[in-house]
Amino acid sequence: MPSVNESAPGTFSFPVRVYYEDTDTAGIVYYANYLRYLERGRTEWLRALGVAQLQLAEETGIVFAVRSLNIEYLKPARLDDALAVLTELTFCGRAQITLKQWIERGGEALVEATVRIACLNANTLKPAALPAGIRRKMGGT
Amino acid sequence: MPSVNESAPGTFSFPVRVYYEDTDTAGIVYYANYLRYLERGRTEWLRALGVAQLQLAEETGIVFAVRSLNIEYLKPARLDDALAVLTELTFCGRAQITLKQWIERGGEALVEATVRIACLNANTLKPAALPAGIRRKMGGT
Amino acid sequence: MPSVNESAPGTFSFPVRVYYEDTDTAGIVYYANYLRYLERGRTEWLRALGVAQLQLAEETGIVFAVRSLNIEYLKPARLDDALAVLTELTFCGRAQITLKQWIERGGEALVEATVRIACLNANTLKPAALPAGIRRKMGGT
Amino acid sequence: MPSVNESAPGTFSFPVRVYYEDTDTAGIVYYANYLRYLERGRTEWLRALGVAQLQLAEETGIVFAVRSLNIEYLKPARLDDALAVLTELTFCGRAQITLKQWIERGGEALVEATVRIACLNANTLKPAALPAGIRRKMGGT
Repeated sequence: MPSVNESAPGTFSFPVRVYYEDTDTAGIVYYANYLRYLERGRTEWLRALGVAQLQLAEETGIVFAVRSLNIEYLKPARLDDALAVLTELTFCGRAQITLKQWIERGGEALVEATVRIACLNANTLKPAALPAGIRRKMGGT
Repeated sequence: MPSVNESAPGTFSFPVRVYYEDTDTAGIVYYANYLRYLERGRTEWLRALGVAQLQLAEETGIVFAVRSLNIEYLKPARLDDALAVLTELTFCGRAQITLKQWIERGGEALVEATVRIACLNANTLKPAALPAGIRRKMGGT
Repeated sequence: MPSVNESAPGTFSFPVRVYYEDTDTAGIVYYANYLRYLERGRTEWLRALGVAQLQLAEETGIVFAVRSLNIEYLKPARLDDALAVLTELTFCGRAQITLKQWIERGGEALVEATVRIACLNANTLKPAALPAGIRRKMGGT
Repeated sequence: MPSVNESAPGTFSFPVRVYYEDTDTAGIVYYANYLRYLERGRTEWLRALGVAQLQLAEETGIVFAVRSLNIEYLKPARLDDALAVLTELTFCGRAQITLKQWIERGGEALVEATVRIACLNANTLKPAALPAGIRRKMGGT
């Protein structure tokens, strides 16, 4: 697995700091809060690609929705930790993408996830084709 | 201050349980999360009065928005605590209400708050008069 | 999949209400917040079995930690929804259990999850054997 | 009120981005979540002063606890907003400090707060004197 510093081309890295709000009484980051970090990583990955989700929704009526998530909790993060959220596109279909995401501390993976995301028509919530321009930005062909 | 069991008439009590999600690494409920409890208490107070916020918004275009909050943190709540959120109307104006709310464990107040809430037109976000029917339900004259 | 009313023996059901805190600007429950509901369901399942996690940690030094989670998001929950969190033990090993959990609204599954949980020594964070008394309560043999 | 760019000396500014996790179904940041932003601002203010809270707790047994909070909600923040959390020490007593904090978007205040914070002995949770070194770093005399 690539570390932050030697990330493979196509791997997007976004820094996250652990605050009190993220931890629980066990002294570690609460398990649901890693999903908040993952979503920040995806949003900033899209922003870096030039995809603004609000604008996308307004102009094309397309929204992204998480369909499924597999997540492995390997080691706990703690208060004040400086983490990196890594995001990599592994599949780009007509109306659906799959991302591999993981969270590192000092190059060590704490959490690994596979996230399947659907493109939906915001009104009908039915699957919608990913616009060709976005597919190109994502590196899908 | 009235306890749960001997609450004054007009005091609404709603039970809340503390879960891992509510605590932080200091071993106590995170300070922002008491505001989530207070909001549950207000929502259930309105529901008990027969005021459904979603329906209110759809039928009259009126939404409630917190304008200000004063909160005193007296004692910490901890994992597994069974709490009660107490809600009392202290002022009912034309387009604004004030509530006194507090959170108890076994009759002892842990948190005390004063919450000022505005009635707004959902489209313009300008102040809107509280419908007479709701004012009556709340006990304002 | 069993509904709340006709749940199979061994399926534990716990009610959850959706509040503003749980929703996001898309008008639905934020994807990480279903994990908070699942954890409430697991905590209440243990409580119903007579397993108090705080006491367990103090008396035996054993804590539970989520190792992995697979979750499918089928339909969104919305503000004010009355949901049920269903929990079922599907595997009970020496130092690890697997739960099937799902969240329903009116008998319809919105979210389905498989959760793998490890028993750990709280000090070393190494795997620890599940006490025989708890294994029996859970229905493992 | 000073804007981010022309902040008065002694005003600490910390950037915050609004993500889905922060918003609610009303399309705005949920009222409790501004307290998470305020706490991030306080933590980074302390870090910038050279005060590491974890180290402080370990070396001196001193922790900080919010005693009271007054908060005015002036205008709502929305998804994707780039905000600044401003923090200013207004009182530095023997065992207690008061901060003025506000949150801006493009120089416009959205939220204003006064936060009273106590120094506590972590074991007894009784008031403890702020170490002289920290008082000097904070600019108290």
